[in-house]
Amino acid sequence: MTNLSSFILASLTLFSLVSFADPLPAKPPVPADNPMSLAKVELGKKLFFDPRMSKDGSISCNSCHNVMAGGDDNMSTSVGVNAKHGGRSSPTVWNAAFMSVQFWDGRAKSLEEQAKGPLTNPVEMAMSNHAEVVTRIQSIPGYVEEFKKAFPKEIKTEKDITIDHFAKAVATYERTLVTPGSAYDLYMKGNKKSLSAAAVRGLGLVQSVGCTSCHMGSNFAGPTLPEGTPFFQKFPVFAGTEFEKKYELTKDGGKFEVTKNAADKGFWRVPTWRNVAVTAPYFHNGSVKTLDEAVKVMAKTQLNKDLKADEISDIVVFLQSLTGKFPEQKMPRLPATDGKTFF
Amino acid sequence: MTNLSSFILASLTLFSLVSFADPLPAKPPVPADNPMSLAKVELGKKLFFDPRMSKDGSISCNSCHNVMAGGDDNMSTSVGVNAKHGGRSSPTVWNAAFMSVQFWDGRAKSLEEQAKGPLTNPVEMAMSNHAEVVTRIQSIPGYVEEFKKAFPKEIKTEKDITIDHFAKAVATYERTLVTPGSAYDLYMKGNKKSLSAAAVRGLGLVQSVGCTSCHMGSNFAGPTLPEGTPFFQKFPVFAGTEFEKKYELTKDGGKFEVTKNAADKGFWRVPTWRNVAVTAPYFHNGSVKTLDEAVKVMAKTQLNKDLKADEISDIVVFLQSLTGKFPEQKMPRLPATDGKTFF
Repeated sequence: MTNLSSFILASLTLFSLVSFADPLPAKPPVPADNPMSLAKVELGKKLFFDPRMSKDGSISCNSCHNVMAGGDDNMSTSVGVNAKHGGRSSPTVWNAAFMSVQFWDGRAKSLEEQAKGPLTNPVEMAMSNHAEVVTRIQSIPGYVEEFKKAFPKEIKTEKDITIDHFAKAVATYERTLVTPGSAYDLYMKGNKKSLSAAAVRGLGLVQSVGCTSCHMGSNFAGPTLPEGTPFFQKFPVFAGTEFEKKYELTKDGGKFEVTKNAADKGFWRVPTWRNVAVTAPYFHNGSVKTLDEAVKVMAKTQLNKDLKADEISDIVVFLQSLTGKFPEQKMPRLPATDGKTFF
Repeated sequence: MTNLSSFILASLTLFSLVSFADPLPAKPPVPADNPMSLAKVELGKKLFFDPRMSKDGSISCNSCHNVMAGGDDNMSTSVGVNAKHGGRSSPTVWNAAFMSVQFWDGRAKSLEEQAKGPLTNPVEMAMSNHAEVVTRIQSIPGYVEEFKKAFPKEIKTEKDITIDHFAKAVATYERTLVTPGSAYDLYMKGNKKSLSAAAVRGLGLVQSVGCTSCHMGSNFAGPTLPEGTPFFQKFPVFAGTEFEKKYELTKDGGKFEVTKNAADKGFWRVPTWRNVAVTAPYFHNGSVKTLDEAVKVMAKTQLNKDLKADEISDIVVFLQSLTGKFPEQKMPRLPATDGKTFF
């Protein structure tokens, strides 16, 4: 075989093997009504890190979506104001900008819509209402100046600030939280040494076992769909496994909890595999503590397959190859309430 | 008068006016047994920001000593694990490296000693014991590598890591948390325009009223003393004021709570004025919400003086001039527990 034909064959093999998931784009889609700007990114970062956006000043967006780590909090369910816990595990904020809908049940059609939710959730940031958030922002002079810069046409004085401006700024920051450059991405771009033999075996297995029928696309969370268009799947597909009982997988109805339509019971947004190795515990209720067990549970509940230990191990090594390069970030400085406090 | 003699006179006046407090040095004292190194600073920063150092993974050092803000949490008393509150307000971590002892009651002789306290305080980070902290660190491969780099002579394997290494790394990071370059410092270095007329009046007042008999030194927290040597003062000095009752100033015995010696009742470490304008609320119990009121209370309880509104206003403007330049910091990346979690 000539070198050229060998190269073409290798390329074709590579293409057919992994065409279910392209490398992660460097930039996510941006909605027309909220274009990116440096001023918005910087403002959104401050708001994301600001615990004063919660009732008692103890919880920021970053508390549950820690961008210094995997974009979550490594807890089954997060700790909110007054140490309350909700019923679901924090999804990672890394690459959330590539998801077509937000929350486990996909109830928010955009990052902007999502950003407004936790503020007033009594088990999260517990603000009385959005007006209370806006009033706090309006009383912090440094924020008022930054909102004017971020939205120069819309905001002339503090009275022009709305919760939608808050949401737009936070969402803009979140669109910078992307992690291209994982070992998998390098492999896909031609650096075949970036994946170990075990990872390559795992890459084959996730296709042959069937995982990639849902975990496809560059974010391993389904096909690329327009913002607001969800990609739901049933979980568990195969009812009555030992895991379903052990991990209480059907206690929460998922999409059903939003629609109250019986046909929606057990339907969930397909979560991303990007950085999955650093976001334990797993599943909507955070009931599974290790990635090995999560792989085992998924194969059984979704595909009715009993994976062998070495298959699980190879798949885990492959999933580890999806941990990306986290961009360096400067720490924000939160504007002060000079000589006074809300708390 | 010649220009030269005018200059000399102005210099002498400046010197005599403000000799009670030199500009903040760029670097704090460093103990001989814990020299600065970049590896230790970077490791200490990660540990400082890592909520996994608390029982349920919800509280880091930064939760109560927020270095993105004034180095505290703007609460009367901080929120710990399970939403517990202690009895005292978080002191700022900014410029803590210039304090000769740590905690409100001065019970820790160094930053290293202080760093170990909150970890096992049941109302703060609530770890069962220091061994539990060390065990967690030992199980995070990224930390083990960083401890080896930070303490190359002492740490060869994870088994060599001790809580004192944790404390040394955190203290080393904290020695970088200094804020020179305030308007006051610039003024002291000859830029007379950096203080407004009101601030200059306030600068005169804090001396004539008597505040600077305690709030002296470059950190406005007492004379420069060797590490471990405390500078305590009685608070309140004048008993029975309306403020004592209103703000429950004597409910907590201060140094007495440590020594149980009646003579120590009401003795406290003199806190810094640096960045005081951004660290409301005030006093050991965080009972006073505004800087104006704090100035009024201190003048009455410590010096038996009733300040006029315009005097308070000038002093507050002066205190605002002590807000320093906060150094830019890169966000740390916390090493992962790959495919698993503690929680």
